[in-house]
Amino acid sequence: MGGGCGSRVITLLARAGTLAAGMAVALDPEEERHLAVRRVVAGERVRLLDGVGRRAEGSLVIEGKRPRVVVESVTEEERPVPLVLAVGAGDRERFLLLVEQAAQLGATEIVPLETARAGSVATKLREAHLERARRRALESIKQCGSAWAPTIAEPATPGEFLQRPRAGRRWLADAEGAVPGPLGATETLTVAVGPEGGFTATERAEFLEADFVPVRLGPHLLRFETAALAALTVAWRARERDRHG
Amino acid sequence: MGGGCGSRVITLLARAGTLAAGMAVALDPEEERHLAVRRVVAGERVRLLDGVGRRAEGSLVIEGKRPRVVVESVTEEERPVPLVLAVGAGDRERFLLLVEQAAQLGATEIVPLETARAGSVATKLREAHLERARRRALESIKQCGSAWAPTIAEPATPGEFLQRPRAGRRWLADAEGAVPGPLGATETLTVAVGPEGGFTATERAEFLEADFVPVRLGPHLLRFETAALAALTVAWRARERDRHG
Repeated sequence: MGGGCGSRVITLLARAGTLAAGMAVALDPEEERHLAVRRVVAGERVRLLDGVGRRAEGSLVIEGKRPRVVVESVTEEERPVPLVLAVGAGDRERFLLLVEQAAQLGATEIVPLETARAGSVATKLREAHLERARRRALESIKQCGSAWAPTIAEPATPGEFLQRPRAGRRWLADAEGAVPGPLGATETLTVAVGPEGGFTATERAEFLEADFVPVRLGPHLLRFETAALAALTVAWRARERDRHG
Repeated sequence: MGGGCGSRVITLLARAGTLAAGMAVALDPEEERHLAVRRVVAGERVRLLDGVGRRAEGSLVIEGKRPRVVVESVTEEERPVPLVLAVGAGDRERFLLLVEQAAQLGATEIVPLETARAGSVATKLREAHLERARRRALESIKQCGSAWAPTIAEPATPGEFLQRPRAGRRWLADAEGAVPGPLGATETLTVAVGPEGGFTATERAEFLEADFVPVRLGPHLLRFETAALAALTVAWRARERDRHG
């Protein structure tokens, strides 16, 4: 933090399911390129993250021209308490940046909402774009050392999203709402944030019907991505407060 | 918020010092273009913001081809409690986005820090770029209805910045720091955030010497702009807590 993001140890991503002590792990082409750029040589210490809770330490071997990492030790990090962000993303570039920042701020799942006011954009959030978002989430945890990356769900309409089973608290970002209440350290939280232009009255009513509580997250009206980041920060702080008083 | 940013009333920017009841206020070329895009006609209701605390209501007149706003009433909004963000900005586009988001989150001043690790970038933050940042701050309050825009200071080294007189609390964004403490609703806060790569040990020592307290602002390492936004949100929430309990 404070730009301290990025330590001296080389951190690389590994595919889920590949991290076990003694394994020689192959790397994705992106990671190979990263190593080439950093002029990494055989024997260097490497940390591997798989985005689903495993962190491994190992060292680099070069076989032929392909680098692999020989895993020496693996630790598992407990799955974080769910912090689900459902956002009516408007602009695709801004959505990618939001994914990156939300990963740093501890979101566990990001759901792109296909809302009435951003429908035409959300419908373009198709596979290639979702893959870019997933990649961005992984790149973000690589920079920041988290063992868990948020999952990026398939786009859903508010109605579809609200049919999912839900536990815990629910916040609806709303400049007219109340200041967010307390949040237990182990309490699931789902935050819904409208697109540019906001949810329609019908969409908003659906969220209220599903027990989402309107909360404001800053002194002014916030754009969707700012509201989303503010919600994650408020949630983190509230859980810390619950944990440590 | 929640994308609700942008109300039905047309909001325009006015130059500081121009807003008084009865005046016919000329508009900047950017605002004229904005009116043209929105196909606004004479007689429409307009809200004007000057970024330094004045909000005016009026209606549009067209003289020749130039639009003006006849001001009917002016309200003054109290200057917000200082919330100063000093950031070692790395990437210029990301810095502009940070300015926009920080304006929504209530920053009152943004100081681009010329740090050792982002020196080559910060030195490029020259007048044209600072003007773009100032413009972006104003555009942001226009979208979000705040009467005050953050000022964008001239770039300064940490040493120069720390020579400024300072009151109130001081936070240094730091993943190893403590959870931020309470903040009074009327207490000035200055937040320092390092660039990508972090402050050098020397820079960090200068901030600690000047009574900046290392605070963490999220569950993981944060990139500079994420740390800055998280700091503003934590500050807002802490002041709300002080205000309302």
